[in-house]
Amino acid sequence: MNSRLLLLGAGRSASSLIQYLLRHAPTEGWFLTVADANPAHLAPVLAAHSQYARAVPFDAADENLLEDLVAQADVVISMLPAVLHPVVARACVRHGRHLATASYVSPAIGELQEAAGAAGVTLLMECGLDPGLDHMSAMRAIAHIRARGGVITSFKSYCGGLLAPAAEADNPWKYKFTWNPRNVVLAGQSTAKFLEDGRPRFIPYQQLFARTEKLTLPEYGDFEGYANRDSLSYRAPYGLDDIPTILRGTLRRPGYCAAWHALVRLGLTDDAVNLDNPETMTWAELVAAYLPAPHVPGLEVATRAAQYLGLAPESEEMGRLHWLGLFSDRPVGHAHATPAQLLERLLSEKWQLQPHDHDLIVMQHLFEYELNGATHRLTSSLAVEGDDATHTAMAKTVGLPLGMAVRRLVRGEIAQRGVVIPVAADLYEPILQELATEYGIRFQEQE
Amino acid sequence: MNSRLLLLGAGRSASSLIQYLLRHAPTEGWFLTVADANPAHLAPVLAAHSQYARAVPFDAADENLLEDLVAQADVVISMLPAVLHPVVARACVRHGRHLATASYVSPAIGELQEAAGAAGVTLLMECGLDPGLDHMSAMRAIAHIRARGGVITSFKSYCGGLLAPAAEADNPWKYKFTWNPRNVVLAGQSTAKFLEDGRPRFIPYQQLFARTEKLTLPEYGDFEGYANRDSLSYRAPYGLDDIPTILRGTLRRPGYCAAWHALVRLGLTDDAVNLDNPETMTWAELVAAYLPAPHVPGLEVATRAAQYLGLAPESEEMGRLHWLGLFSDRPVGHAHATPAQLLERLLSEKWQLQPHDHDLIVMQHLFEYELNGATHRLTSSLAVEGDDATHTAMAKTVGLPLGMAVRRLVRGEIAQRGVVIPVAADLYEPILQELATEYGIRFQEQE
Repeated sequence: MNSRLLLLGAGRSASSLIQYLLRHAPTEGWFLTVADANPAHLAPVLAAHSQYARAVPFDAADENLLEDLVAQADVVISMLPAVLHPVVARACVRHGRHLATASYVSPAIGELQEAAGAAGVTLLMECGLDPGLDHMSAMRAIAHIRARGGVITSFKSYCGGLLAPAAEADNPWKYKFTWNPRNVVLAGQSTAKFLEDGRPRFIPYQQLFARTEKLTLPEYGDFEGYANRDSLSYRAPYGLDDIPTILRGTLRRPGYCAAWHALVRLGLTDDAVNLDNPETMTWAELVAAYLPAPHVPGLEVATRAAQYLGLAPESEEMGRLHWLGLFSDRPVGHAHATPAQLLERLLSEKWQLQPHDHDLIVMQHLFEYELNGATHRLTSSLAVEGDDATHTAMAKTVGLPLGMAVRRLVRGEIAQRGVVIPVAADLYEPILQELATEYGIRFQEQE
Repeated sequence: MNSRLLLLGAGRSASSLIQYLLRHAPTEGWFLTVADANPAHLAPVLAAHSQYARAVPFDAADENLLEDLVAQADVVISMLPAVLHPVVARACVRHGRHLATASYVSPAIGELQEAAGAAGVTLLMECGLDPGLDHMSAMRAIAHIRARGGVITSFKSYCGGLLAPAAEADNPWKYKFTWNPRNVVLAGQSTAKFLEDGRPRFIPYQQLFARTEKLTLPEYGDFEGYANRDSLSYRAPYGLDDIPTILRGTLRRPGYCAAWHALVRLGLTDDAVNLDNPETMTWAELVAAYLPAPHVPGLEVATRAAQYLGLAPESEEMGRLHWLGLFSDRPVGHAHATPAQLLERLLSEKWQLQPHDHDLIVMQHLFEYELNGATHRLTSSLAVEGDDATHTAMAKTVGLPLGMAVRRLVRGEIAQRGVVIPVAADLYEPILQELATEYGIRFQEQE
């Protein structure tokens, strides 16, 4: 008998997931319904697959429609914004349908643990890239170390959505948006917490981008990582409750963080204050308004900014700020905005991914462990380039693990009910295997 | 005929208001009902006044009770938390009762403008100290300058709730809590905005306490002021739409802001992150967790903190941090808290007002204006000391203007309906007059 798959939400990042599901639909006996706010854009994608796929309109605000769609499916996959997942998950529990997503287990999802278990439903969460592939690859490395009798004393893990080298050349930040710009602008706006040598460590926001760690990836060179908000919550699911050192971080190319730190210090990433500014205010005027010295006739805003930031006028950091047009007479173009909104608007243009640009996903786990009285190091690294503007590295690394998890879920190969994340070997091993052999997405380990 | 007054909420800061209302009840023909969550504590206060005052229990969550109380009153006064005022105001509009409060006109109150006007109801807001006395005294000075033909080019206005000199002696911060501790800990956590010489000025939080202005008050010596969140919104109600320089600020004694800036830089005022800390964590461990260098055996936390902050170990700033016990082995005493919660807990003990302490309210307006081709300066200053632990300067300067506004409202001397704040001379003049002659609360003007 055929299985009916329902995919909710088919935005840009769902391209590789849809391709994967279509690839396996004929052999696995699936019929795929893709429900999206704008189903017309799916017509060319699904045209050659009409025997086992269709697109239907979807409105996330229409709960009756959601109920109907879920009732008609065997397994539900959601690429909707994470905030909508509790509603979707509750519908799945009511109708006894499994659900798979690439989003974090939110408190609201966690509360469904018992009801899902009682209904025989699997809510398979965190099956994309980060969270997803990070769990799978880290847990495999942890299992290998433990199988040899090693005791892990340090685990640092970094991930970043960046650019393939050719796409970096025209941009001194070596960064363009391959993901939600707003999240990038507001990144780290809370104290970061992690553990080092058994001691808690906290980094306040205004220091976060000044305290980076250097990393090197095979073939791709140097990166720098800044600490994520909460590294501590990874201890329990990874079985590392007593680990002395644990840190999760985000990767950028060297130089990005020092220049971003300058934006933070200027105050331009604040999203809490409405500046009451006119649309015609220029970027130079905006920056000048933040500088401590009152206006000095004849002294350039850039010069004053460099003084305030303690940077040489010709420094790389100042060069990156100049490149953004931060000292120019260009209007900010948006009245009554927060600085973060204005910065996002500016960056969305300056950091726009071009049609010929390829993105790059990098991930690195760094372990230290004790074995036979000696300290050992293990580094596990991944770099994935996008194929094109549709099948980006982001779309592949989010969508393919999710598709593979769905395939196992539909086949009945996942026995666990309730809320599940991919930290068990019988779930992550076949996925890591398929990613490596079918798609060349493989971690390189170095001892 | 008697007028029935209803006072909602009778916390500590209502003491002088109640005293004022009781003083005038017999001659004005008032019967006062004080509705409070804990009416028993009012018994001694009201005992000698049972002919024209009573206390009744009040539960802010009980809307039926609120309706009954409002229906039985002619004028309602609310000292409840500002967040409850929309509910109270709507009840007043429904029953055609006037309302007086010392709280800001929130958007929800502003929305009642039309309904209140149609119902013939006055919602008299912002009649305490700040907002309240600040409006009244500033508007009087502005009116005087204008009456002489002056054009105001600069208006800076500062207010602070501090300590009478004798109460400062045992505390190097020269500060104790006379108001909500949480608000003090979280003060300024957004970008401050004001105008200087016709140009917008913004100060981000991490610079706010480093950019202070020095002020001097007659008889009370030196203070320093930091900018409030939003100085711009005062332009319209004061009729200063085109003023080139406007700033509102908060006063502290010299040295407070530099030491508070150190707390901000350490990250200890952040209220957004749960530190997952144990109750037994010490203050020295907490501070150490924030310091950039990893733990160095033998190097004191205080020494490392001074290095990080760029302060001399023997500096006044470090002295203030030491005095708080920030580098001590004292446990933080509260598990899974935000740094701001822990700091508030510590400060609530260190900065506790003692029974013999008197508080001090200071306010200063600084004007510059053009008249006959010359620039003139006018400074208007107020300092009010508390009488005792009950009739604090805060209670007097909040409660007396409010009581006087109520007196005028009940007498029918306020003709305006809808939402009203005290910026019109016929409202503020008699109040400023009564404050000066009856209570010695008077502004000193210096040209």
